[in-house]
Amino acid sequence: VGRVHNFAAGPAALPEAVLARIREDLPEYRGCGMSVMEMSHRGAGFRAIAEAAEARLRALLAIPEDYRVLFLQGGASLQFSAVALNLSEAGQVVDYLDTGYWSGRAIAEARRFCEVNVVASGAPGGYRAVPAREGWRLTPGAAYLHCTPNETIGGVELHQVPEVGATPLVADMSSTLLSRPLEVGRFALIYAGAQKNLGIAGLTVVIVRAGLLGRARAITPRLLDYRVQAEAGSLANTAPTFAWYVAGLLFEWIAEQGGLAALGERNRRKAERLYVAIDASALYHNGVEPGARSWMNVPFTLAEPALEAAFLAAAREAGLVGLEGHRSTGGLRASLYNAVPEAAVEALVAFMGEFERLH
Amino acid sequence: VGRVHNFAAGPAALPEAVLARIREDLPEYRGCGMSVMEMSHRGAGFRAIAEAAEARLRALLAIPEDYRVLFLQGGASLQFSAVALNLSEAGQVVDYLDTGYWSGRAIAEARRFCEVNVVASGAPGGYRAVPAREGWRLTPGAAYLHCTPNETIGGVELHQVPEVGATPLVADMSSTLLSRPLEVGRFALIYAGAQKNLGIAGLTVVIVRAGLLGRARAITPRLLDYRVQAEAGSLANTAPTFAWYVAGLLFEWIAEQGGLAALGERNRRKAERLYVAIDASALYHNGVEPGARSWMNVPFTLAEPALEAAFLAAAREAGLVGLEGHRSTGGLRASLYNAVPEAAVEALVAFMGEFERLH
Repeated sequence: VGRVHNFAAGPAALPEAVLARIREDLPEYRGCGMSVMEMSHRGAGFRAIAEAAEARLRALLAIPEDYRVLFLQGGASLQFSAVALNLSEAGQVVDYLDTGYWSGRAIAEARRFCEVNVVASGAPGGYRAVPAREGWRLTPGAAYLHCTPNETIGGVELHQVPEVGATPLVADMSSTLLSRPLEVGRFALIYAGAQKNLGIAGLTVVIVRAGLLGRARAITPRLLDYRVQAEAGSLANTAPTFAWYVAGLLFEWIAEQGGLAALGERNRRKAERLYVAIDASALYHNGVEPGARSWMNVPFTLAEPALEAAFLAAAREAGLVGLEGHRSTGGLRASLYNAVPEAAVEALVAFMGEFERLH
Repeated sequence: VGRVHNFAAGPAALPEAVLARIREDLPEYRGCGMSVMEMSHRGAGFRAIAEAAEARLRALLAIPEDYRVLFLQGGASLQFSAVALNLSEAGQVVDYLDTGYWSGRAIAEARRFCEVNVVASGAPGGYRAVPAREGWRLTPGAAYLHCTPNETIGGVELHQVPEVGATPLVADMSSTLLSRPLEVGRFALIYAGAQKNLGIAGLTVVIVRAGLLGRARAITPRLLDYRVQAEAGSLANTAPTFAWYVAGLLFEWIAEQGGLAALGERNRRKAERLYVAIDASALYHNGVEPGARSWMNVPFTLAEPALEAAFLAAAREAGLVGLEGHRSTGGLRASLYNAVPEAAVEALVAFMGEFERLH
């Protein structure tokens, strides 16, 4: 069996070159006499890997010097708690933009610790668009405004960084970070689970303005206090060393692809190719408003939902996998992260056309 | 350069057979068309891997049916917070045994959430022994009693499970779990970072009696609530899938070695070989009382501390690495986890003898 085309939403496809590199680095990493997995997190060998990874990420995103980059465990969902505990005081109002499933999860966790004001919600419109900035009801003096620039399940993307005045802007960028250029300086804090465009599950990257450190509430578990991790270089305890190393390989691969501008252009093309095919068909349907359609996650349904199982089975037969929709929504979904090549999208579009002709 | 003998305290050596298996499973896992790192955490492929790993761990430790096994992120240090938040009420007294650095860290974090009673401390004796059970001052009605059966830095091990009556016994077994047989039913909760005997950094295993779930305080971040993770099969969010897979390989390897009884015997022999060599020498010294000496971590000093750098350099030259003591203590340390073969200990003992003759 050869490699399949993997459209999973995360954990997701990795570039073949990165997988080859990981394999070559086993059982010994480049003359070190041991694998990366066996290296002490405080030894010179791993520190070189870790520092190179951070330097590459800083270069890719042109991260300003007054931002700290943290390599943590726990997933973006643990950041739902950490953001609230680090950046707000008890009883303080925090603003959240509700664009779908994942912002909803972030809001639910924040409500356990804060007074949450939802500045706008896509719910009345079935989450098929991002509420227009003009209608957002910001709270003067809010501790921060949280948004989810790409909704992995709903396939809705905020294509512009919103203007929010003096309010610190916080973003869950799990499924969009490194998919295109980004002006980091517009944000107070960005976090992302690695298992989409940054590598493998088990690593969460946090990019935070240094001035926001040191405000964690007394009830914050020590390892969730950003200051503790920033002061320790993300080594307040044993870091997820292997996932950190894989992230470094991804960053290197992205640079080799021409950086975020080149990848962004490629990702735009990939998404456009698929949306055009969907819109031209009578069988496939994507209900997201064109201006809010995600470049990373393309959910779609079939005019005849009963054909879904046949579609997935035939797709698998054709070497196209990971096309199931999220368990909360059903339907189908193609995720088009960086590591999904244009050839995979071509293969998917061709398959979809053929499947439509047959049914 | 060939493989070195790695005596690091964690992340630590992995069995060569496990590394070979990981390599063989790249870039495609056993005919799946993708690597484990690329599999959806909710797909059938990864679920089979995850369930097999749990089943193997249950078999190795004969874990009773009324215990849940959780595969989490964050490291044992995040469990310092989670244990307190899940198993005690605000203001309730919790008992802690102080045997050294790591129990001290657990105590410091618990103090942020609980009234901590230290039942006994090895501090007056320089942490060279485990305080005798007869002298422990238990609190009637304490929420739990926490101990650290093996102190990775001090090299002190509690070789018997203490009798603590009705108090739930909680243990940080990061550096001793799976190194020998264990009666899990004596404990209310066991936790362990994986990067010593269970695989690689980024995974933490929690074994908890089901009756203790559902008591987390309101301030507990959702993902630290054991009930949430137990009900979700450790998939309340994306799990550290690759580390979970490696843990499964380790469990399989342990079974192939003859299980915990065989490994325990081997580990006892390895430790004894090294302690005998240290005690017989005039240059090397281990100050831990014989009855409390760890099978896993053997710290030692040189009669001439100025020779340390020369010792480490010569050892590295001889292919023996990871022998630096912890940064908090200095000195030297050899960790003898499962994946360190008897041949490595023989090589270390031979090297130490030769070094002593030369200096």
